Amino acid sequence: MTRRILIRIEYDGGPFVGWQRQINGPSVQATIEDAAQAFIHKPTIVAGAGRTDAGVHATGQAAHLEVPKKFNANRVMEALNAHLTSVPITILNATEVPYDFHARFSATGRRYLYRILPRRQAPALNFGRVWHHKHHLDLKLMKIAAKHFLGQHDFTSFRASKCQAESPVRTLNQLNVELIGDEIHIYAEARSFLHHQIRNIAGTLTLVGRKKWHPDDVNLALKAAHRSAAGPTAPAHGLYLIGVDYPSVYKSRD
Amino acid sequence: MTRRILIRIEYDGGPFVGWQRQINGPSVQATIEDAAQAFIHKPTIVAGAGRTDAGVHATGQAAHLEVPKKFNANRVMEALNAHLTSVPITILNATEVPYDFHARFSATGRRYLYRILPRRQAPALNFGRVWHHKHHLDLKLMKIAAKHFLGQHDFTSFRASKCQAESPVRTLNQLNVELIGDEIHIYAEARSFLHHQIRNIAGTLTLVGRKKWHPDDVNLALKAAHRSAAGPTAPAHGLYLIGVDYPSVYKSRD
Repeated sequence: MTRRILIRIEYDGGPFVGWQRQINGPSVQATIEDAAQAFIHKPTIVAGAGRTDAGVHATGQAAHLEVPKKFNANRVMEALNAHLTSVPITILNATEVPYDFHARFSATGRRYLYRILPRRQAPALNFGRVWHHKHHLDLKLMKIAAKHFLGQHDFTSFRASKCQAESPVRTLNQLNVELIGDEIHIYAEARSFLHHQIRNIAGTLTLVGRKKWHPDDVNLALKAAHRSAAGPTAPAHGLYLIGVDYPSVYKSRD
Repeated sequence: MTRRILIRIEYDGGPFVGWQRQINGPSVQATIEDAAQAFIHKPTIVAGAGRTDAGVHATGQAAHLEVPKKFNANRVMEALNAHLTSVPITILNATEVPYDFHARFSATGRRYLYRILPRRQAPALNFGRVWHHKHHLDLKLMKIAAKHFLGQHDFTSFRASKCQAESPVRTLNQLNVELIGDEIHIYAEARSFLHHQIRNIAGTLTLVGRKKWHPDDVNLALKAAHRSAAGPTAPAHGLYLIGVDYPSVYKSRD
């Protein structure tokens, strides 16, 4: 007998090759799987809601794993954290979910934050946590441009050339640009995203903020349906997976 | 001929023994003085507005230095930053000030932020940047208790036993306790502070937040005028010097 456990995870993406287990270095997934194996005493798959790239951070990644019945959700969280003390990964909470739950396929929404520090001087405190953008950015223009991305579009121009999704069509439910202290924060929400989609949107919004692009140019870039029509890919270390949403039927079973 | 330059400084206090030059390790002051010497080509004193302890961060430390006339304020900032690229210290801006200006003695106010992360799980992303406090804290009670500190008091109970200030009397103009995301932020403003004053106030406020103290117990602690009457000293790495204020006559001369 087993239990299926949904965990919420915070991590510093800096030291990892990304979420997904890979042969070229430590991944967040493999690190948590190793922590699980240390107390379950057999190999365990930790299935994530989304594959964050190398360097991308998370304050609300979600994943599920199968554990022997004797471990309840809270004990799974405590045991995982006990084996993760030496790495920048923390299990924030754990909930038992039904066997038909899947962290990736049951998700109804993903929320990301992209942080930009628009100033000439390098960050002393948030190095590796924000995109240090050396030029002034016009917040108002970026807000106007962001609205063009809302709703359903063919995001071919804004996905990585290596993106493996079958369809380039996605629906952006939210794309807010806010000034938070001396940083510009871009909040994005969709059922799912294409590879590099938010980083390409963020890179393009900075072109608008620098007045190299008119806000309406976003429409032209979308219509072009070619990666070269959009702006540069913003660096990974400014991106945070902040939340994954599930139908309420899966919430808080213990 | 020389110019006197006021600089504003951001730093990660983690790798330093504190602001002040010391023989036991790298200080922020000595690091900036070395950077200044590298382009002025003679030893230069960088006089800070406040001596932050080892581990204390800054987003708005202030200091002044004297440079040869040929260096204007902007060139001083650029030259210092060019010599500080390998350390987590950044000069945010520089302004020429009159010769009667002194970063410490001309200051009319200092502003600090203390960050607490009140949750059981360790911080993966803000390790070393917040006080990880493993217990729930009642924000409302902390807000009530904070009001007792406002105004002029004998802060003997809240200063380090090694504090060298002549008088233990200080006037707190602001002490706000706010929930920011999943952190509790304590904002403090005064003309000047005693050694460990904010960290001792923060430590005491957590006793109130945990309901070990009644908010009114703050008054008893103040009246006791003895360090043992107050709560513990909160760790250095949760504290940020966020700003130093000067009379408007000194503002923006270039």
